[in-house]
Amino acid sequence: MASVAPGVAVVDLTHQVPAFDVLAGAETLRHATRYMPPDTVYLAVVDPGVGTERRALAIGTGSGAFLVGPDNGLLLPAAEALGGVRGAVRLTDGRYHVHPVSNTFHGRDVFAPVAAHLAAGVRLEALGEAVEPASLEQPALREARRDRPGELTAGIISVDRFGNARLSVMQDEAGLEYGSELAVDAGDGDMQVRYVETFGSARAGELILVPDSHWRLSLSINKGNAARALALEVGGLVHLKLPENSPGTPS
Amino acid sequence: MASVAPGVAVVDLTHQVPAFDVLAGAETLRHATRYMPPDTVYLAVVDPGVGTERRALAIGTGSGAFLVGPDNGLLLPAAEALGGVRGAVRLTDGRYHVHPVSNTFHGRDVFAPVAAHLAAGVRLEALGEAVEPASLEQPALREARRDRPGELTAGIISVDRFGNARLSVMQDEAGLEYGSELAVDAGDGDMQVRYVETFGSARAGELILVPDSHWRLSLSINKGNAARALALEVGGLVHLKLPENSPGTPS
Amino acid sequence: MASVAPGVAVVDLTHQVPAFDVLAGAETLRHATRYMPPDTVYLAVVDPGVGTERRALAIGTGSGAFLVGPDNGLLLPAAEALGGVRGAVRLTDGRYHVHPVSNTFHGRDVFAPVAAHLAAGVRLEALGEAVEPASLEQPALREARRDRPGELTAGIISVDRFGNARLSVMQDEAGLEYGSELAVDAGDGDMQVRYVETFGSARAGELILVPDSHWRLSLSINKGNAARALALEVGGLVHLKLPENSPGTPS
Repeated sequence: MASVAPGVAVVDLTHQVPAFDVLAGAETLRHATRYMPPDTVYLAVVDPGVGTERRALAIGTGSGAFLVGPDNGLLLPAAEALGGVRGAVRLTDGRYHVHPVSNTFHGRDVFAPVAAHLAAGVRLEALGEAVEPASLEQPALREARRDRPGELTAGIISVDRFGNARLSVMQDEAGLEYGSELAVDAGDGDMQVRYVETFGSARAGELILVPDSHWRLSLSINKGNAARALALEVGGLVHLKLPENSPGTPS
Repeated sequence: MASVAPGVAVVDLTHQVPAFDVLAGAETLRHATRYMPPDTVYLAVVDPGVGTERRALAIGTGSGAFLVGPDNGLLLPAAEALGGVRGAVRLTDGRYHVHPVSNTFHGRDVFAPVAAHLAAGVRLEALGEAVEPASLEQPALREARRDRPGELTAGIISVDRFGNARLSVMQDEAGLEYGSELAVDAGDGDMQVRYVETFGSARAGELILVPDSHWRLSLSINKGNAARALALEVGGLVHLKLPENSPGTPS
Repeated sequence: MASVAPGVAVVDLTHQVPAFDVLAGAETLRHATRYMPPDTVYLAVVDPGVGTERRALAIGTGSGAFLVGPDNGLLLPAAEALGGVRGAVRLTDGRYHVHPVSNTFHGRDVFAPVAAHLAAGVRLEALGEAVEPASLEQPALREARRDRPGELTAGIISVDRFGNARLSVMQDEAGLEYGSELAVDAGDGDMQVRYVETFGSARAGELILVPDSHWRLSLSINKGNAARALALEVGGLVHLKLPENSPGTPS
């Protein structure tokens, strides 16, 4: 990228997406769009299908930003957050790749040079054949399931290095009041958990639900490691029994 | 930061400070000031009190550098190394923050944008209310304790990925001669340890004290992992019995 | 480096080289030369001999790139890939170092500032005394050994975070056909392994040989972790019994 687009700022968003976890990558990428300049070219690679028939893509968005990566659902949530897909091409023009192109590392040989060419001013259409936006692979979104009034089942989207488990429930969706208690079952039976505004409102070692930096609920232990203590893993399910006065319960 | 201050160089000093360890962060930040350009804006976040009443700060220093982060002792050792506090403000002016401001991640929503505004030329006074420098939270410094003539008790400040344990004793303070032997107790009784000038002067597998890159004593195993071998952890204590001819012993 | 050569782009190639592993560092550095701009100054530090008599070097190459680091074999494979050594100096002129120079961290005090001075335009000859290229320390290369017709013994050069074990056999050298099966012994007896073009051609959980991003053979488990499953470690040996129709067998 330094050769193709010298002087362009390269910002390393993360290398912490768990291996093969397209959904965690999609969530992280979508979230990052809130905090980046409008003319950003996003390069994202979580690519278990590298070397197969999965398509390599560049996407133009309504905001003017571009997304580059595999056609496996990784890019679409971010594209929606950036004003929707305005155009998409399959990366078929080898002039914008680094040769030889390996079968196992398109991040290096296809996606990174294409992103650099976009940053250097190459037009989207030059990169390859147009692709019908409706044909793009959709991500298998993990959303919270409302089993019955007052009960939610959420998935664990990610676990950070502090052991906080990010749930597939937005803060607004649960409608909890700060300080309320609820029963949470992460697989081993109900635990009493307090919903707090911030870590600083909890005792050291207390199991809590707390709105996290992505505006989602996180199952956490203040100054401890909830994932280790409760054996929480990405993809696991967590059941929440909301208190009676919360929006999720019948009135 | 790329939006607020495009073109400003962002140098990533470290993401290796152990979770919640304000003192290890303060030590690392203070040390880094020796090696950065004079007009640096330092952004530092080790912030277990995020979301509580702890103040968010920007500090101007005698050298012209700025420090941005929480008021929990993290910034003060660096401020002293940079010529002392010349002014401090509480970050109360929301125009320099990213909204909405989360309760759990002021690094992103408050500290990073404020640091970028400082780098872009905003004056310290514009960022919020002036704070009395004497009111800033002091770090609970870990220093070596001289128990009796010829004996020191030091704390373990940090452990690096090679398993070297950095002690709270400056090289000068111990006054040891290269090649001298001393008894060291890391919790399981006395061990004979040689003080050497450099790893290359030790045998493979030898337990040594060696001046480290911060000009402190490090308890190490040459080409091995002292932390793993001796179960050394940050915050643990290490007793040193200095040889008779060293400055720590009575003459 | 930001002080000496402000505005020069600093690209962080990797901090993942295993501790003390000069050969893995040499392999990574040599490989990186394929993907960097021609006027790059390479700064590389894997330096178990820091503080001993090992020489500190800067090397000029046929391509115009420079290499800076210890004289322990780390730089030479990259120098060959960059058109060969055109000149080498020992870093004896302290004006280009940061003082005081520690005994344990020449990366910071000697190599980094020298690399920055080269990037800022200082001539190679100014940095110290000329060194005879033939006197430079050669790396102890790990190459595949052809035990008998149809059998290879390879070393494990590195293990990545997915658990893929990179072998000291170039793809061309083995001469395998995609889809062929062979017996592989990583220490616990023969296992049947399929040689595939890409991860996507294998079943989940299948043990495979696959050409990797460095154009070497990798012993891998698709969507699994071969290193963990088979206890593979850097430096370990892997025996390959090639099928009868491959170039390694007698015709």
